[in-house]
Amino acid sequence: MSYNTFGHLFRVTTWGESHGPAIGCVIDGCPPRIALDAADIQPWLDRRRPGQSQFTTQRQEADQVEILSGVFEGQTTGTPISLLIHNTDQRSRDYGDIATRYRPGHADVAYDMKYGIRDYRGGGRSSARETAMRVAAGAVARRVLGDGVRIRGALVQVGPHAINRDRLDWDLAATNALFCPDAEMLPVWEEYLAGIRKKGSSIGAVIEVVAEGVPAGLGAPVYGKLDSDLAMAMMSINAVKGVEIGEGFAAASLTGEENADPMRMEDGSLRFGSNHAGGVLGGISTGQPVVVRFAVKPTSSILTPVPSVTREGENVDVMTKGRHDPCVGIRAVPVGEAMMACVLADHLLRHRGQVGSL
Amino acid sequence: MSYNTFGHLFRVTTWGESHGPAIGCVIDGCPPRIALDAADIQPWLDRRRPGQSQFTTQRQEADQVEILSGVFEGQTTGTPISLLIHNTDQRSRDYGDIATRYRPGHADVAYDMKYGIRDYRGGGRSSARETAMRVAAGAVARRVLGDGVRIRGALVQVGPHAINRDRLDWDLAATNALFCPDAEMLPVWEEYLAGIRKKGSSIGAVIEVVAEGVPAGLGAPVYGKLDSDLAMAMMSINAVKGVEIGEGFAAASLTGEENADPMRMEDGSLRFGSNHAGGVLGGISTGQPVVVRFAVKPTSSILTPVPSVTREGENVDVMTKGRHDPCVGIRAVPVGEAMMACVLADHLLRHRGQVGSL
Amino acid sequence: MSYNTFGHLFRVTTWGESHGPAIGCVIDGCPPRIALDAADIQPWLDRRRPGQSQFTTQRQEADQVEILSGVFEGQTTGTPISLLIHNTDQRSRDYGDIATRYRPGHADVAYDMKYGIRDYRGGGRSSARETAMRVAAGAVARRVLGDGVRIRGALVQVGPHAINRDRLDWDLAATNALFCPDAEMLPVWEEYLAGIRKKGSSIGAVIEVVAEGVPAGLGAPVYGKLDSDLAMAMMSINAVKGVEIGEGFAAASLTGEENADPMRMEDGSLRFGSNHAGGVLGGISTGQPVVVRFAVKPTSSILTPVPSVTREGENVDVMTKGRHDPCVGIRAVPVGEAMMACVLADHLLRHRGQVGSL
Amino acid sequence: MSYNTFGHLFRVTTWGESHGPAIGCVIDGCPPRIALDAADIQPWLDRRRPGQSQFTTQRQEADQVEILSGVFEGQTTGTPISLLIHNTDQRSRDYGDIATRYRPGHADVAYDMKYGIRDYRGGGRSSARETAMRVAAGAVARRVLGDGVRIRGALVQVGPHAINRDRLDWDLAATNALFCPDAEMLPVWEEYLAGIRKKGSSIGAVIEVVAEGVPAGLGAPVYGKLDSDLAMAMMSINAVKGVEIGEGFAAASLTGEENADPMRMEDGSLRFGSNHAGGVLGGISTGQPVVVRFAVKPTSSILTPVPSVTREGENVDVMTKGRHDPCVGIRAVPVGEAMMACVLADHLLRHRGQVGSL
Repeated sequence: MSYNTFGHLFRVTTWGESHGPAIGCVIDGCPPRIALDAADIQPWLDRRRPGQSQFTTQRQEADQVEILSGVFEGQTTGTPISLLIHNTDQRSRDYGDIATRYRPGHADVAYDMKYGIRDYRGGGRSSARETAMRVAAGAVARRVLGDGVRIRGALVQVGPHAINRDRLDWDLAATNALFCPDAEMLPVWEEYLAGIRKKGSSIGAVIEVVAEGVPAGLGAPVYGKLDSDLAMAMMSINAVKGVEIGEGFAAASLTGEENADPMRMEDGSLRFGSNHAGGVLGGISTGQPVVVRFAVKPTSSILTPVPSVTREGENVDVMTKGRHDPCVGIRAVPVGEAMMACVLADHLLRHRGQVGSL
Repeated sequence: MSYNTFGHLFRVTTWGESHGPAIGCVIDGCPPRIALDAADIQPWLDRRRPGQSQFTTQRQEADQVEILSGVFEGQTTGTPISLLIHNTDQRSRDYGDIATRYRPGHADVAYDMKYGIRDYRGGGRSSARETAMRVAAGAVARRVLGDGVRIRGALVQVGPHAINRDRLDWDLAATNALFCPDAEMLPVWEEYLAGIRKKGSSIGAVIEVVAEGVPAGLGAPVYGKLDSDLAMAMMSINAVKGVEIGEGFAAASLTGEENADPMRMEDGSLRFGSNHAGGVLGGISTGQPVVVRFAVKPTSSILTPVPSVTREGENVDVMTKGRHDPCVGIRAVPVGEAMMACVLADHLLRHRGQVGSL
Repeated sequence: MSYNTFGHLFRVTTWGESHGPAIGCVIDGCPPRIALDAADIQPWLDRRRPGQSQFTTQRQEADQVEILSGVFEGQTTGTPISLLIHNTDQRSRDYGDIATRYRPGHADVAYDMKYGIRDYRGGGRSSARETAMRVAAGAVARRVLGDGVRIRGALVQVGPHAINRDRLDWDLAATNALFCPDAEMLPVWEEYLAGIRKKGSSIGAVIEVVAEGVPAGLGAPVYGKLDSDLAMAMMSINAVKGVEIGEGFAAASLTGEENADPMRMEDGSLRFGSNHAGGVLGGISTGQPVVVRFAVKPTSSILTPVPSVTREGENVDVMTKGRHDPCVGIRAVPVGEAMMACVLADHLLRHRGQVGSL
Repeated sequence: MSYNTFGHLFRVTTWGESHGPAIGCVIDGCPPRIALDAADIQPWLDRRRPGQSQFTTQRQEADQVEILSGVFEGQTTGTPISLLIHNTDQRSRDYGDIATRYRPGHADVAYDMKYGIRDYRGGGRSSARETAMRVAAGAVARRVLGDGVRIRGALVQVGPHAINRDRLDWDLAATNALFCPDAEMLPVWEEYLAGIRKKGSSIGAVIEVVAEGVPAGLGAPVYGKLDSDLAMAMMSINAVKGVEIGEGFAAASLTGEENADPMRMEDGSLRFGSNHAGGVLGGISTGQPVVVRFAVKPTSSILTPVPSVTREGENVDVMTKGRHDPCVGIRAVPVGEAMMACVLADHLLRHRGQVGSL
């Protein structure tokens, strides 16, 4: 990953600011002769689209994706695939405050420190709007992976409320706007988030993404490990502060006996008795489900004033008015799935390059 | 990062197997005219070297580093720096078991799945021995960063025993073999680890690495974020299962008000009132200390037999005899520091390239 | 360079097919706070635009460039710059022949061999239309280089007719549609090319690009040499078959005495007595003008039938009807200049990254 | 390529100075399970070794290569292959002159301009000694390509004396120290070079490298073209000033009719009637022989004094005493072959990664 590109053989470059004319991405290195049209991508974008519940930003964007290159007569050609979404909800309004007063916890001040300039409209490049293109690229990556690989995500914790894993139900997660996989937890979250929203507050969350059917052998020691690339990919999502694989931080409290994943031959195939490892050993996939979790901080856009400074170096108190997300972790679910898909597709091609057929 | 190279402008390529004739690395892109000789690198290697306490592997390696290129008359020349350490402790012995019986939780089976071949002697390429070269490269990276940047690491949790942060004492961490920064916790860990060792068991740990004096502006949105590169770097260390920045996973339980880092001008300079962010906003350093923690799993080398299989597909039970680490997290402390140094040095050069002087 | 991206710190990714809805590029890594708007780019595109004389293709494209991101209030922000040109001259027509009959000397057959599919409309991705985005990126690169670096190109040979270097006049080259720098040669070429065009034939050419004011120190041994990157850049232009630096192939016939560039101090500065080296020693710029020449083959689109085959493996004879360039080398002049600008801008940033201020 | 690494999937990083303790390279990304030991590499190094005739430098180096990693029980393991050659001929001597007086036409002054420091002993990093590691890497690349690909090089011009292509005899080129493929030209060159050597002069040359059996489909438009990567690779060799593919610069004088390569089906396979293209169309191999030529300048080490300057800025005249090559182009033949092998191996893996089996 470098600046605005990630991936090595399946390479995605994204561009665009929140309130510019459009956002887009270029996918380079996609294998040829894969069936693809805009209708394959649009449903994934629709899942991520804001404004679908009261708990995400009310910004309304149609987010209609266009394919500008790389697809001919319904198939990829092996040349770069350019995807573009026009920004339709660029309300003309006064950005005076955001231009001069740094919002605490936002990238505003950091961009100015680095570049000495920033497009402050709607957060510019640092806006979560960029993640729409990750989702679009992820839709293409899923096509590269094929139907044998199933990638699913869910919210597993909202503030202090974690799901009960015994009730984990992926089908449920796919059908509610909170991506909640626990039927009993869903109403708890809804009530909790309603309270957060009413107060103009915000709250963090934890997302889990699981990929099943991943072939063994993906990942390359020692600096192209599958799990280190996943860590990078998830940490690059806006507001993410932690990433873990398998047992993750819980492994720190386990003994070797507790953390062991026994192996046995069953019907001529290798089977693991558990998956503490999260599907990766030595940076290489083992054929077990690849399990990643990441933590999202509470958005810093809150109604409570927080001490801050202006560009000119004066002390001010800043509060965020207008539409905002009480829990940005919700919309991070489809983004995390997309990053998983992109990383796996890249590693699939890289493995095939070095080692040959899978 | 790609295969065995990490970094973009400050690029490190490592090579070598645990029981081959030598291990080494090539550091490319180092700025010229930096004072450097082997004596600048050796102390950092000595800190990582095993056999310094009863809680790390008893393998004895002098780990004497040689500089083979890139340094002339005591200064870097801007050309690649080749570092090499001869493997002196390659006891000739029978590797029969390890060659044919997969150790559960090790990379053995994954390497065979990927490559169809592996150097099984001492774990080959997947051995933690590779991390010696990270430490060597980190010593050079520290020189690039200069004295203004201070990087320190400590063990902050061993199994169920986390330090009390009110007692956190960096000076203490620098002077005990467990890198423990909490005087009251040190004897607790020693006793606990003695018990683990006696049982032939192992235990996980959490390491914290903090970099102070990091200039604001390092990191490049959106796929070259400082924190995503740190996540990748730490996750690439052997046995690491989780990485977090600042509040990390704890941020999931916080509200926006609790997680806010207020800003104020003080004596003409921007000051933050807290550092929940861990020194990074929008992927860019803010001048605050950069705070990273990572979780290390218990080593899978334990005396308790675990069900496994052979290369030929027969069920066996595998236990690990001989020298091993009861807690691999201990030696991960200098490795984590080194990866922090390498990532920061790379981003320093990348920032200077795009934006000019800091 | 990799697939559709070139450059390391100043990175350009192009996309688009000749007859798709648009072509475009993403420029990543551009320094911030550089004044830029579409009017800075458009004049360079206009120079390359076909249809300006009878000797280039009669395709008419307005080639109006739009900036979709990375520029705010007239300045670059350091985030990716997305440029787009809509394809307006996509005549609806029958592509039947080109779809099934390989044009000899075109990329048609090679794309099919590689990908098993190709967008045959107007040559698809292999069309010289892609070079418009190189010119656009080059315009931005010129801004990065600043006014101190002057890059000029000219046609120096058309078929058997080479210019007389004693008459080389850069101002003249800038003012005629053939980029001819030799007043006496200009009418010769015009008459010669008129004959070629009338016969439905085509002819090769040699282009020279010279960059003056290039700072000493650009280029990185041994695989990031300035001249090897220039060779790659020029050879990547459609139809280019040879690249040379300074004396180039003529150096094969020279003795060490003849090829020597003497050095002398003059007024406290190093001066070279000649420039056989073409401004590069050991892969690094010396402050002398950087001189590159490249040879362009005759376009394979000619009226004379040439034996070929169909996709289905039948023998046919193929001739090219309709608009075409009698000498594609003409339009390669601004493209060569653009590639020079991009390579120099990239190396400027890379040098600044590793070594610091110039 | 970047600094001291070239290739994308088959990546080679070289290091070392002419008079340091050793030179070496790391080959990353090599496929596993390829039979390899030092004896596979040594013969290629022996071909390049100096001191084999009176026309190359009399430096005597055994150039014994050691494999330090990446090979186990005679097979590659997929992990990095570290190769090392000790420098045995580092005569202790006075380097005073070369340290302070810039040799005209050498990289001396450019390295100082860039880095402000250089290892002047024997040319340091800029010495042709570095090319030994290219040859070593090329030997591994040949193994990756397999026996189906045959790569051969020859000297085709020495000063004013070009071979007669009607007499081109590859077998002959393989058996004489000048790599001369023309029996009648061999004595002419010998006599001519003897004269050059006697005068303490030097002369340029042209090398041709041809790869037969290259699968169709290698190369990736538009910035990973096979020919642009070959141009970069060859231009990165010391003293190279020009590169051409197929007809190369001669194509500038040809008409479309003359340059056309007709195609026909023969026995169910596509056959080309000629190979003006040099085996590459649109940047992609077509299955025809890949033909590259490159020009090498005369070495600047000559006995005739040339005006120069010192590090301190005083005018001096510099002549080169001691051993030197009258024609560095001779030893460039095995180096050019090696670069061809490395580029092809890299593209083979890249193609397999994106498109699958060949």
